[in-house]
Amino acid sequence: MEELFENLKVDESISWDVDGKLGKDVKLKILYCGVCHSDLHSVKNETGKVTYPVLPGMFLISFILLVDYDMAVIWTGLEVGSKVTKVKVGDKVGVGCMAGSCRSCENCANDLENHCPKCPMKYFGLDKPGIHLGVVGLGGLGHVAVKFAKAFGAKVTVISTAPHKKEEAIKNLGVDSFWLAAAANTMDGILDTVSAHHPIQPLLNLLKSNGKLIILGVIPKPLELPVFPLLSARKMVAGSGIGGMKETQEMLDFAAKHNITADVEVIGMDYINQAMERLEKADVKYRFVIDIAATLKDA
Amino acid sequence: MEELFENLKVDESISWDVDGKLGKDVKLKILYCGVCHSDLHSVKNETGKVTYPVLPGMFLISFILLVDYDMAVIWTGLEVGSKVTKVKVGDKVGVGCMAGSCRSCENCANDLENHCPKCPMKYFGLDKPGIHLGVVGLGGLGHVAVKFAKAFGAKVTVISTAPHKKEEAIKNLGVDSFWLAAAANTMDGILDTVSAHHPIQPLLNLLKSNGKLIILGVIPKPLELPVFPLLSARKMVAGSGIGGMKETQEMLDFAAKHNITADVEVIGMDYINQAMERLEKADVKYRFVIDIAATLKDA
Repeated sequence: MEELFENLKVDESISWDVDGKLGKDVKLKILYCGVCHSDLHSVKNETGKVTYPVLPGMFLISFILLVDYDMAVIWTGLEVGSKVTKVKVGDKVGVGCMAGSCRSCENCANDLENHCPKCPMKYFGLDKPGIHLGVVGLGGLGHVAVKFAKAFGAKVTVISTAPHKKEEAIKNLGVDSFWLAAAANTMDGILDTVSAHHPIQPLLNLLKSNGKLIILGVIPKPLELPVFPLLSARKMVAGSGIGGMKETQEMLDFAAKHNITADVEVIGMDYINQAMERLEKADVKYRFVIDIAATLKDA
Repeated sequence: MEELFENLKVDESISWDVDGKLGKDVKLKILYCGVCHSDLHSVKNETGKVTYPVLPGMFLISFILLVDYDMAVIWTGLEVGSKVTKVKVGDKVGVGCMAGSCRSCENCANDLENHCPKCPMKYFGLDKPGIHLGVVGLGGLGHVAVKFAKAFGAKVTVISTAPHKKEEAIKNLGVDSFWLAAAANTMDGILDTVSAHHPIQPLLNLLKSNGKLIILGVIPKPLELPVFPLLSARKMVAGSGIGGMKETQEMLDFAAKHNITADVEVIGMDYINQAMERLEKADVKYRFVIDIAATLKDA
């Protein structure tokens, strides 16, 4: 699995695939696909906007790759079109979930084709050595957030309601501390990876003045936002979904340089129902990834 | 009322002289004091934490001055202590609401004695010429926000539910446009000065990618925070209350240089009940200011 991530390229032609310009001339073979909490939101119609029957496998078609190792799809190109410049047949390719970027607007000109560059830490100035970062939730996204934060040189505290994860977090992930209830006014930033509805006031309380709470989980219903912590200590609440191509490439290069990989449980496609049930109970270390190629080969 | 302020001792930790060095041996005479929506929150116990009888006049003792012309208190020093370096007897002095800053912690070292520097526009990078700023609410704070934004060179759109304010806003404040319903994805930042509970999703919709919604009004109850706009377009919600001493001084210097003044209705102390009633109906252009000195002189 790890070798799949080596030398992975993000190319405009790959995004074109998603916006329809490349797709005409390319055949791809799916190798792996990640499973994430958004699948659960879809399956359970937690947004209230899902029309059944639903194919959570939309992630198989286009979803985010190594930026957060969240919903990873890794393809092998079988053919490439005339506009492809960075990849050739047989290369491993990651596919982001950008679609239909116009390549001419202000966002595209600023390398924000997807409206929302990831790198939470970098964009929000949370990539500085020596700062104190909190990571809420130690799942597929959270454990990679810890790895990046440690690579940036931060002191990392995991905030979790799962005490059984403490030993693993400290021993294997290098987490500096693991709190069920943390001390107020101690953190420069918090990366909140929880995808379920939860109160954010306790998290805002953990932040120092000017601290930043970055929400990364897809939460269908509005959160309660207390205003006073924002006014009294200029704290902020922001979010981040996925990255533009330039930032995605930077993230991949950083991950390769610092040997940051995701810890995953590779499963066959026929295990997906059990995987979803376990995912709901946060019983996965740390991300399910479907081995599409092997499953189809076996079939 | 007069007795309350006679022989008022001001500790050096109180930053009312803007650099915190005024000392312990000072007598002050209040000249003017602003009235703001926070008074209404107190009088009506909208926080649920007020114990009656309540003296909204707490603002008379110490509250923010010209930073936002919001709750202005202007004093004349009658005596000054040995540590005073910047003001002399007879100087007009503005009083911020900072008290008890330690002068030794990380915040104090960073000129953030009050945990929360103001200058929303400057801190949040919204002081750049050519950007598009929205200002929600055209009251005591909003109209000064417009003046600062124009001085910074921004295109300013007022978002208001009060159509009768449109002509005044465009003619006298130089507002570029006045919208009851504005166009989505067009603004770099929004300064939200409304102190009553209100939905913020429509405001988030107005922001471009990476846009910033800065909440300035004291709103007792939590707001509903939709997560998707944060994730999909990296928008952020932040707040700002008052400034540290350094930023406050910078703001005052900028205001002096650009001749930014607040438009106020000066009232006597005996008009306060009517003023509060009118304030609740947003019937003030744009800020009530009590002429304390004249009122006490007449009495």
